[in-house]
Amino acid sequence: MKATIYQGNQTFSVIEKDMEVPGRDEVRIKVAYVGVCGTDVHIYHGMMDKRVKIPETIGHEMSGVIDAIGMDVIGFKVGDKVVVRPLDDRKAKPSDKGFNHICQELKFIGIDSPGAMQQYWNVPAFTLHKLSEETDLKLAALVEPLSVAVHDVRLSGLQSDETAVVLGGGPIGLLVALVARSTGARVIVSEVNEKRVAKAKEFGLDVVNPTKIDLVKYVRDKTDGRLADVVFEVAGAQAALDIMTEISGIRGRIVLVAIHGQKKEVDLFKFFWKELKLIGARVYEKDDYEKSIELITAMDIPFDKMITDVQPLTNIQQVFEHIDKNPDGMKVLMECHA
Amino acid sequence: MKATIYQGNQTFSVIEKDMEVPGRDEVRIKVAYVGVCGTDVHIYHGMMDKRVKIPETIGHEMSGVIDAIGMDVIGFKVGDKVVVRPLDDRKAKPSDKGFNHICQELKFIGIDSPGAMQQYWNVPAFTLHKLSEETDLKLAALVEPLSVAVHDVRLSGLQSDETAVVLGGGPIGLLVALVARSTGARVIVSEVNEKRVAKAKEFGLDVVNPTKIDLVKYVRDKTDGRLADVVFEVAGAQAALDIMTEISGIRGRIVLVAIHGQKKEVDLFKFFWKELKLIGARVYEKDDYEKSIELITAMDIPFDKMITDVQPLTNIQQVFEHIDKNPDGMKVLMECHA
Repeated sequence: MKATIYQGNQTFSVIEKDMEVPGRDEVRIKVAYVGVCGTDVHIYHGMMDKRVKIPETIGHEMSGVIDAIGMDVIGFKVGDKVVVRPLDDRKAKPSDKGFNHICQELKFIGIDSPGAMQQYWNVPAFTLHKLSEETDLKLAALVEPLSVAVHDVRLSGLQSDETAVVLGGGPIGLLVALVARSTGARVIVSEVNEKRVAKAKEFGLDVVNPTKIDLVKYVRDKTDGRLADVVFEVAGAQAALDIMTEISGIRGRIVLVAIHGQKKEVDLFKFFWKELKLIGARVYEKDDYEKSIELITAMDIPFDKMITDVQPLTNIQQVFEHIDKNPDGMKVLMECHA
Repeated sequence: MKATIYQGNQTFSVIEKDMEVPGRDEVRIKVAYVGVCGTDVHIYHGMMDKRVKIPETIGHEMSGVIDAIGMDVIGFKVGDKVVVRPLDDRKAKPSDKGFNHICQELKFIGIDSPGAMQQYWNVPAFTLHKLSEETDLKLAALVEPLSVAVHDVRLSGLQSDETAVVLGGGPIGLLVALVARSTGARVIVSEVNEKRVAKAKEFGLDVVNPTKIDLVKYVRDKTDGRLADVVFEVAGAQAALDIMTEISGIRGRIVLVAIHGQKKEVDLFKFFWKELKLIGARVYEKDDYEKSIELITAMDIPFDKMITDVQPLTNIQQVFEHIDKNPDGMKVLMECHA
């Protein structure tokens, strides 16, 4: 089998190695597609070299078919289409209060342990979610990022008669917008990159470029002065942090999706004045995965438009180099058995 | 009757004027006690001269007895003991979503219109809450600040099996701590001023000075690693903002009680990592006033210890000057008919 290895220094290698027999409570998956996440790009840039044990196979957005079953695994059989929820929460403690998806000793599979950018991947069976036979495995590689969006929208408590503004129209921002819209709510996307604006329009989303129009006025006009009930901060930029409190109406909820490595300035006065809520959101829970699989299977939303490129896994080095040069792209998949 | 007037330039005058007949839907209150709020001190320092229409009578923490009744007022009679909820929400709009206590056109009585620092005060009847005949009018002057604390604790969703940390042991911080404790929760107060530490101890509160001990370790040890379920940020200092995200456990809720006039640095990464919530809280709602009156009437909590000084209203200039020189004090009341 072929596996890819992150070697540090913005370098991946492709190696030949033997397939491993799945251990107790494990399955071996024949990986079909693996997506490239922003976190993978972050790893490629060396930003997580302290955490990733180099050399290491990374990757956690995937779909595949069960190829072999280890001892004591029940509920799955060879040939089942599956996706992996890459959270190893086996060290959860009572002080985690049952929120095991963000437990203090959480291991993220594909970062803290070997990931999916290989042809066969052994994982604990408790990470599996079964897909129906008809599920398109290419789309199923989007289940993981889509689950992030489902989690964000769930934590926001967005209602069908409300207005949500999504700051940032990258892959996660668009998925958040699509999930938010599927609840029946009005959704406005704010994005500065014109290529991404065009992509959002392909989905029929109401999208504006805040460098060209006054976003606060736009939201105010669209909502009869009510402003946004929910804001998703997916941009990660100071400008987004500045405007998120402006566009929020009274008791607005702001879901923090972007990851801010440094402390940032926040207008806390507006939190006080309008009784705003800031809601931190990280990864997903089991129910989010189930909901995400439901959305992918239902085919009501043209998620295929999210996939802007599919490359053979063996092209991994070029794939990462290309992503760096092409900020307009959305989701890039690698096909593991091309 | 005597009334006090804020003249700007850190100056109050005391004048003689005629009592006014209450208008339609109004009552005249014979004010018993009026408390000095942090906001009043802020006004005295000239920080709100753009908002306050100088010369103006300020003050909004009070208790009194109805002295005269205007046309169309129902449900109240001369002699009723009352407190005023000083929120004029008559211009609330649909875009305020029913959260009238923070509506966009809210007028705060005692800031935006004449306040309680006078012997007789005319107010709209809809602002009134009736007290029982036995209620101590001195304690009742604490209903307004206590309602802030009740509101904060309610928005936190604090449960009896949880731990709350209150950052800042001033008047509002102590009231928040006392209300939080009354829910059955464990409460830890963090305060740097040793006089205030001693005051918190008078109430039997678990209070620590974070400049002397490691607050994060203290909270971790007390909670078996669970850390705080709820944090009340009542200090308003950058150090409090820095530590609030440290001491919060997974899915911790941070209630923002302090008013931050400038943008401040916040560790948004911890909001993401632990899925924290920041909850802005401002003033109070009708139910908070009712709950606050209940607590004052029940006498289970020795609120009288909060009152560190009572002065005649006519001493107003010295009262404000003294508060400035005495950061250790808690609540100062002025007696309007001394």
